[in-house]
Amino acid sequence: MILGRVIGEIHGTIKHEFYANRRLLVIEKTSPSGEATGDYLIAVDSVGAGADEKVLVLDEGNGARQVLDSPDGPVRSVVVGIIDDVVTY
Amino acid sequence: MILGRVIGEIHGTIKHEFYANRRLLVIEKTSPSGEATGDYLIAVDSVGAGADEKVLVLDEGNGARQVLDSPDGPVRSVVVGIIDDVVTY
Amino acid sequence: MILGRVIGEIHGTIKHEFYANRRLLVIEKTSPSGEATGDYLIAVDSVGAGADEKVLVLDEGNGARQVLDSPDGPVRSVVVGIIDDVVTY
Amino acid sequence: MILGRVIGEIHGTIKHEFYANRRLLVIEKTSPSGEATGDYLIAVDSVGAGADEKVLVLDEGNGARQVLDSPDGPVRSVVVGIIDDVVTY
Amino acid sequence: MILGRVIGEIHGTIKHEFYANRRLLVIEKTSPSGEATGDYLIAVDSVGAGADEKVLVLDEGNGARQVLDSPDGPVRSVVVGIIDDVVTY
Repeated sequence: MILGRVIGEIHGTIKHEFYANRRLLVIEKTSPSGEATGDYLIAVDSVGAGADEKVLVLDEGNGARQVLDSPDGPVRSVVVGIIDDVVTY
Repeated sequence: MILGRVIGEIHGTIKHEFYANRRLLVIEKTSPSGEATGDYLIAVDSVGAGADEKVLVLDEGNGARQVLDSPDGPVRSVVVGIIDDVVTY
Repeated sequence: MILGRVIGEIHGTIKHEFYANRRLLVIEKTSPSGEATGDYLIAVDSVGAGADEKVLVLDEGNGARQVLDSPDGPVRSVVVGIIDDVVTY
Repeated sequence: MILGRVIGEIHGTIKHEFYANRRLLVIEKTSPSGEATGDYLIAVDSVGAGADEKVLVLDEGNGARQVLDSPDGPVRSVVVGIIDDVVTY
Repeated sequence: MILGRVIGEIHGTIKHEFYANRRLLVIEKTSPSGEATGDYLIAVDSVGAGADEKVLVLDEGNGARQVLDSPDGPVRSVVVGIIDDVVTY
């Protein structure tokens, strides 16, 4: 799993029906302290994450389908938590 | 999932029968704002994506097989949407 | 599987219920001799790993779910061992 | 899926029985236009690919096992097609 | 699948019981001709690989569990062959 920041959303008329009522978020990957790594991914929201929030992203299909209650959904990445705090020792 | 742009197609006479009537697209990976990242992948079309269109690509085998209705298809990557707009906050 | 060092924990109020009573560790990836590689991942603890300990991390969803006894848990990475010694020939 | 070029084969006496009668090819990864990317992978042949041929490689275990008709084979990568032509728009 | 060289072993008292009687090898990833790439992984032995031997590594959980006869083992990477020769064309 990785940490990221919600920087946008994608919209499209032609898409698999699975995405019809789901938000597709653009997630900037970050270091534990919050700096952008220069990479990103697209993830389905499951926690109501808003603009600029730090989030935990699961990047694995079978777990993502369970979170979204869709045993055959075309999904690999899902936002599974909003991060309040990263404590580093 | 990632964003990309359709830049080509591949053709081959000798291939697994699964690919017989499917388009195999060359997808240039892009940043959220559409710049090429320098990387690419080959993905099966599922939405009728045309030349130069921005697309959403699922890069995970079990989900890809579901999209293509082929429980045992040799596939990992599939184009699952055409992107109209990427809104960044 | 990879080697890493426990450098922190993440906390969040809004998250999937699976994470309710589990520690989410920030793992700095290391070389076999223990130098940081500059990359990290977030992993669920399964062995009681503490601050600064060298650990073995499994980064694969199906195995991670088995370790955590949760056939449908949203998890990909889990700490599966604490490293006492890395012998290089 | 990715494109590559067959640059060699590996041989070994001690190996899992699954590999007994299968060719293990060394595949140089290439760009869509055929330049080497500097990376490679080892893939099982399924189409009779020969030296220097451009090939399509599936790098995903569940699909690879289906192609090779081996539900429990220790395999992740398989050559699934020989490329005649890559058309770029 | 990738090629590597056995450069060490890891030892730990606290670990998942699956690893109790298995050797956890440190594998330096190599190019087809045997040069170190600078990267490594930890893999369970299944062929009796010794110090400095060139090996074939399967880096995929479901196949790795089959090789080790453990349908629910926490494992992703397993050494599946010892390489005698890499023939490049």
